[in-house]
Amino acid sequence: MSRIAYVNGQYVPHAQAAVHVEDRGYQFADGVYEVCEVWSGKIVDAPRHLDRLGRSLGELRIEWPMARRALEFVMREVVRRNKVRNGIVYMQVTRGVSRRDHYFPSEDVAPSIVITARSANPKVADATAAKGISVVTYPENRWPRVDIKTVALLPNVLAKQHAKENGAKEAWYFDKDNNVTEGGSTNAWIVTKEGVLVTRPAESGILRGITRSVILDIIAREGLKFEERPFSVEEAKNAKEAFVTAASTIAMPVVKIDEAIIGNGHPGSVATQLREMFHTATDFMMV
Amino acid sequence: MSRIAYVNGQYVPHAQAAVHVEDRGYQFADGVYEVCEVWSGKIVDAPRHLDRLGRSLGELRIEWPMARRALEFVMREVVRRNKVRNGIVYMQVTRGVSRRDHYFPSEDVAPSIVITARSANPKVADATAAKGISVVTYPENRWPRVDIKTVALLPNVLAKQHAKENGAKEAWYFDKDNNVTEGGSTNAWIVTKEGVLVTRPAESGILRGITRSVILDIIAREGLKFEERPFSVEEAKNAKEAFVTAASTIAMPVVKIDEAIIGNGHPGSVATQLREMFHTATDFMMV
Repeated sequence: MSRIAYVNGQYVPHAQAAVHVEDRGYQFADGVYEVCEVWSGKIVDAPRHLDRLGRSLGELRIEWPMARRALEFVMREVVRRNKVRNGIVYMQVTRGVSRRDHYFPSEDVAPSIVITARSANPKVADATAAKGISVVTYPENRWPRVDIKTVALLPNVLAKQHAKENGAKEAWYFDKDNNVTEGGSTNAWIVTKEGVLVTRPAESGILRGITRSVILDIIAREGLKFEERPFSVEEAKNAKEAFVTAASTIAMPVVKIDEAIIGNGHPGSVATQLREMFHTATDFMMV
Repeated sequence: MSRIAYVNGQYVPHAQAAVHVEDRGYQFADGVYEVCEVWSGKIVDAPRHLDRLGRSLGELRIEWPMARRALEFVMREVVRRNKVRNGIVYMQVTRGVSRRDHYFPSEDVAPSIVITARSANPKVADATAAKGISVVTYPENRWPRVDIKTVALLPNVLAKQHAKENGAKEAWYFDKDNNVTEGGSTNAWIVTKEGVLVTRPAESGILRGITRSVILDIIAREGLKFEERPFSVEEAKNAKEAFVTAASTIAMPVVKIDEAIIGNGHPGSVATQLREMFHTATDFMMV
C-alpha cells in the first residue's frame, strides 16, 4: 500500500511529501513534534499529546497550524488513509517558510504542518520487551530546554547512535551530579530492591513524557510504591529493575546498563506488568 | 528575476525547491551548513568554507554529497544563475532521507544537498556599519558542540529574537564565568583602551569563524596588537571598541552592549579599518 502524508493542507503520496528548503524546520530546527501510538485502530492519548504540542508551540511562540479539532480530524484521516491499526502517527509543526534569517518571520507567515503515520507490528516490540533492552550511559550535553519537544534532535541522534554502536538500544543521559536525566528518546525508570518505582521529576532537565504520565496514573490507581526523585547511574545499576517509557515503546524493560546486568538479567515483573496494563489507563481517539 | 536553487542534483525554481518531509535535516536537525559572501561577482573564501564544511561533516560522520570540485562548480553555477554580484551563497548538507529513526540510516542513504544564493545591496550593510549595531547579552544555553556548524539553530534563533525585541541586532552569549562566548550568528571582538584587539580562542565554546580567521590574518599582516583570550561582559562594556564578524556582515562595529555605550557611541576606527581592509586578505573563487 502506498503511504499518504498530510503536508500543509494536502494529502499527498508519501514519496512526494515535501517541504520548502526555506522551511524554518529545515534551516533552523525551528519546530516541534509529537508521536502518538496507534493501538488497535485507535490513537492513544491524543488529548495529552495535543496539550503538550500546545505547550511546546506556546514556549516557542509558534501559532497552532489549524484549530485543534481540525488537527484531530487530520490525524485520524492520516491514520485511516494509511490503514494503520497498530503503529504511530507523527506530527511536526514548524515556524513556516520564510527567507532565511534567524529572527522570527513576520506574523503573516503561517506555520508548517506535516502529519505521517505508519504501521508497526506490535509482536516485534513485544518480542523485544520479552528479552529486554540494553542501555549505555552518556554525559548530558543538550541545552536546558529539553522540556520543549523540539526537532533540534541532533544531540539525541548522536547519543542514540553511540548506544547502537555499543550494542545498546538507548542512551541514558547523566548530569554533572551523575544522576540519570532521561533517555535519548525515552524517560528513564528504576524499581529499587524495596520495590519502589523511581523516576526523575519533570520540573526541568527532562521532557514531561505522556507515557510517563500514564504510568504515573497506573501507579496511583494500583497503589504502587513510588518516589519522584533523581536517581544516580550507580543506583540504577544496582536496581532490581529498570525500564524506559515512550509512546512508541510503551514500558520497555532494561536488562543491562553499560556493563551492569540489572536484576537477574531478565525483564522485571513490575515493568512487564506496567506494559501489560498500559492500555487500561490511556485515552483513545477513535479513527 | 526568478531565483534558482540547487536541490539534490537539480536546478529548480526557488518556489519549487523542496526536500522530503523525512529528510533528516527536517526531523532531526541532522545536518550542517555554510554561508559564503559573494563580493563583486566572486565567492569569498570558498576554500576555507569548504574545509570547515568537511570538518563539520566529518564530526557528524556525514559523507560529502559530491566531490569537492563538483560542489565548487555548483556553488558558482547557483550564484551565476541567480545573477548575484553581491550577496551570499548558502549550502546545507544533511544525512539524507530515511524512514524516521534516531539512529543513522544505512550507508546507502545519500546525503541531501541544497544550495541557494541571493543578492544583498552592500550599501545597506555599509550604512548599518556606519552607525554601528547594538547587542544584548544572553546566558549561554547551547550544547557544547557549537564548534560544529549544524542546523540545530533553534537556541540561536531564540537568542537573536530576544535581541531584536530588545532593540538590538545581535545577542552575545556569556558563559558561567561571565565571559562572552560568541554572538548568535557572529564571533565577538573588542578593542581595549590600550588598543589591543581581543577575541576568544576557538578551541571550544565557539565556532571557528572564517571571517574571524581572515581578520586574524590581517592582524598578523598589519602587525596589530592582539590577544586571543576570553573577555568578560564587563570588560566588553568598558572597551574602547567592540565588533562582530561573520561572512554575511564582515566586521560590523558594535556601539552598545545592553545599556552600556561603547567608546563614544560611534563605530570605532579599528573595526572600521578592518572592515575596509577585509577583502584585501580573502581568497576569491571566480563565478
